[in-house]
Amino acid sequence: MATIMRKMNIISRCESIYRTENSTDHLPGIYHSYVFAICKNPGITQDGLAKHLCKNKSNVTRHLSFLEKNGLVERKTCEKDKRETLVYPTQKMLLILPEVRTITMDWNSKIAQGINDEELEIFHKVLDEMLIKSKEIIYGKDVK
Amino acid sequence: MATIMRKMNIISRCESIYRTENSTDHLPGIYHSYVFAICKNPGITQDGLAKHLCKNKSNVTRHLSFLEKNGLVERKTCEKDKRETLVYPTQKMLLILPEVRTITMDWNSKIAQGINDEELEIFHKVLDEMLIKSKEIIYGKDVK
Repeated sequence: MATIMRKMNIISRCESIYRTENSTDHLPGIYHSYVFAICKNPGITQDGLAKHLCKNKSNVTRHLSFLEKNGLVERKTCEKDKRETLVYPTQKMLLILPEVRTITMDWNSKIAQGINDEELEIFHKVLDEMLIKSKEIIYGKDVK
Repeated sequence: MATIMRKMNIISRCESIYRTENSTDHLPGIYHSYVFAICKNPGITQDGLAKHLCKNKSNVTRHLSFLEKNGLVERKTCEKDKRETLVYPTQKMLLILPEVRTITMDWNSKIAQGINDEELEIFHKVLDEMLIKSKEIIYGKDVK
């Protein structure tokens, strides 16, 4: 039997392909989580973003360069702490947000279709426990 | 409440960080699924690998270049069909396999720790249904 993670990873990659295919401007699926995080937290630091997305810092730097080149984010040096870089969504990113939200909702509802409520509730409960454990393993017990 | 995919993606990224941190030679977590797939299917085509891993072809090409540079895979042109490239594990990759397998098993057992068998069984059942649906959405009904 395939492991839990093999299954989750395949579902996750299929979602990423779905996101890319359904995005009007073909924004690769990998960037959709940035759209949510940055629009919800304008001015978030690069390091804060890495933690929020559970991605390593060098990947986040590379991905932000792509988003900046494509006019989707602006980066500014933090006035209070010059070592920090703050990330803001551009108007273009804010305009993409509703579509990204719709794609996300559609995918989540498609994969949960036909599964009964009771099983889905247990699934969410277990997933929540695994999420907490995963963060604890990587970031320690103090992370929410 | 965070969506199913937000949770799965975070768990998946935490796993990737865990893989990288626990790999003796710090082989980035993203490549561990390649180790499994290539060692299990020596001579798999690049396209077959992309399909097996549910990754897009250009990413697979980029990732294989990295693995080749690091002496982990060999690529050969298929004799029967010159357009196809076949991928083989090197001795170095075969030596990494047991460690990658242990890391995978450890992570899967860590995140499932403390969850009762009945709930875990339902979780697997739902995950299997979501996996089938995901593949159907992306590749059509004929894909297993």
